[in-house]
Amino acid sequence: MRRTPVVRAGDGLWLKLEQLQHTGSFKPRGAFNRILAAGEGAAAGIVTASGGNAGLGAAHAARELGVPAEVFVPETAPEVKVRGLKALGAEVRQVGSIYREAFEAASERAAETGRLFCHAYDQPEVCAGQGTVGLELLEQVPEVDTVLLAVGGGGLLAGVAAALEGRARVVGVEPAGVPTLHRALAEGRPVDVSVESVAADALGASRIGAIAFDVAVRTGAGSVLVGDEAIIAARRHLWDHWRLAVEHGTAAALAALHTGAYVPAPGEKVAVVICGANTDPSDLHG
Amino acid sequence: MRRTPVVRAGDGLWLKLEQLQHTGSFKPRGAFNRILAAGEGAAAGIVTASGGNAGLGAAHAARELGVPAEVFVPETAPEVKVRGLKALGAEVRQVGSIYREAFEAASERAAETGRLFCHAYDQPEVCAGQGTVGLELLEQVPEVDTVLLAVGGGGLLAGVAAALEGRARVVGVEPAGVPTLHRALAEGRPVDVSVESVAADALGASRIGAIAFDVAVRTGAGSVLVGDEAIIAARRHLWDHWRLAVEHGTAAALAALHTGAYVPAPGEKVAVVICGANTDPSDLHG
Repeated sequence: MRRTPVVRAGDGLWLKLEQLQHTGSFKPRGAFNRILAAGEGAAAGIVTASGGNAGLGAAHAARELGVPAEVFVPETAPEVKVRGLKALGAEVRQVGSIYREAFEAASERAAETGRLFCHAYDQPEVCAGQGTVGLELLEQVPEVDTVLLAVGGGGLLAGVAAALEGRARVVGVEPAGVPTLHRALAEGRPVDVSVESVAADALGASRIGAIAFDVAVRTGAGSVLVGDEAIIAARRHLWDHWRLAVEHGTAAALAALHTGAYVPAPGEKVAVVICGANTDPSDLHG
Repeated sequence: MRRTPVVRAGDGLWLKLEQLQHTGSFKPRGAFNRILAAGEGAAAGIVTASGGNAGLGAAHAARELGVPAEVFVPETAPEVKVRGLKALGAEVRQVGSIYREAFEAASERAAETGRLFCHAYDQPEVCAGQGTVGLELLEQVPEVDTVLLAVGGGGLLAGVAAALEGRARVVGVEPAGVPTLHRALAEGRPVDVSVESVAADALGASRIGAIAFDVAVRTGAGSVLVGDEAIIAARRHLWDHWRLAVEHGTAAALAALHTGAYVPAPGEKVAVVICGANTDPSDLHG
C-alpha cells in the first residue's frame, strides 16, 4: 500500500489524502488484508461484487498477490467501469439488472468454487484493513482529536473507529439522501433506507454494515448529514483550492465542516479523510 | 505557503506534490519573497505581466500581504484566466496582442507609478522564493541525489539548483519544441527559441532567464528534452495511477524518466517536482 500524505488545511485541520492510494480509493487496504488473512483460503482466487471502488481495490490486491479475481457487476454497469476492472486483470461477470443480483451471483459463485468471497465492507478483515488509514493518520497527526469520514456501507468508519478507539473519535458523514448509519443509530439496528444522492455512486449502500453499526455504537462514532448542494460545493472547493479532483461521496466529509453539520470545539484538532477520486473531472474546469 | 507533501512513487523515487500549493502552482513562493524583500518598496502595490501561473501567484501573494496587484495580459487572454485573476482581487489590464506587449506595458506602468515590478521568473528574489521548494524537499527526503523539474523561464530551476548546490543536483526537463535552457547551454548564452509544444501554456517562455542560465552553468544543472507525445502520456499516467490532474508542462518532468531522456544510475535517489495543476481535466476521464 501507499502511505498517503497528510496536508495541513488550516488551524487544527488536516486532510488525509487517501485518494492517492492505488486505484484511487482506500479500498485496496481492506482487500489486501482479507486476502492475506485467508492464506491458503485465497489460493483458488477471490470473488467480489462491485462495479465501483471496492471492485477496483479487490482486483488490484488480487493481482498484486498473484491470485485470480472474479468481479460481479450488474449488466447495467457502465462500460468505463468494466474496462477499469479488466485493466486490473479481473474477470468481469455481468449478471442481473441491479447490484443485489450481482451480489447474490457472486456469493453463489464463491460457495460453488471455493474461492474467497471478499465483501465490499462487511467483513472483519476488510474493516481492519481500512483501519490502517487511521493508524497512519495517528502517526502523521498524533494530536488529532476527531476524524471526519464519509460513510457508505461503513467499512472505513468501522476500521478507523476501531483502530483509534480511546485515542480519537470518528464522526461519519452521510448524504441526507442516504442516511444508513444515521437511521440505524436512531432505530437501534441497521435498516434499509432509500438511496437518493449525487454521491450514490460511491455511497450507495442501502443499509449500514453490521460490523460498522456495532463499532459505531461501541465507540460512540456518530453520524451527521449533509445535503447534495453542500456536497457539490465541497467537491468544487477541493478543486478550486487544492486542485484535488474527488468523488462527490468523498467531498461529503469536508462538507460537514462547511455547513456546520459538524462544529469542532475550540482547539479541537480535526482530520478529514479524502477517500476517493474515481470521478469524472470534466465539470471542474473554469 | 503550504508545505506540500512528498509521496514515494517507487524504489528511490519520490514526487513532490507542489501542485497542491495555493493557486495550483509553485509561483506564489517567488512572489511572496519578491514582495516581502521589497518592504516599503511594495507599499504602493505590485505590477506583473502574466495570464498564467505567475500572474495567479503574484495576485495571491499580493492579496495575502495586503497590497494592490495589477496584472497585464494580452487582449487575447482567455476569459477563464482573466476571471481567475480577478477572483484573486487583481486589477487586470488587457494590452496588446502578444505577451511581449503586455510585458512592456507592465514594465512602463511600474516605472510610472513606482509600483513594484514582479517578474515571472528572472529576478533574484523570485528565484530564491521558488528555491524553498528545494529546501522543503531536502527536509522531506534528505537522501535525494537528483531533482527533476520542468523548465519554462527557469525560475524554479534557478531557485532549487541554488538552494541544493553541493547537496543534490537538478536536471531541467523541457519540451523538445521549447528548448530554452538546452539551446542556451549549447550556445553558451540565452537565445530565443521558437515555442511549439502542447506544454506551451505553462512552459512558453521563448528564452531562458539570465539568472537561471547562470545558475545552471554554475551548478551543472543540465537539460533533457521530451516530446509532446511523452508529455501527454505522462500527464495521463499521473491521473491513471495517482489521480493527479496536472498541466502538460508539469508532466514533462516525469516524462523524462518514462522515455529514458534521464536514466538514474543504480541506487540514485530521484525526486520529481509536480509543479502545476492549472489544467482543464476534462480529457482525463475514462
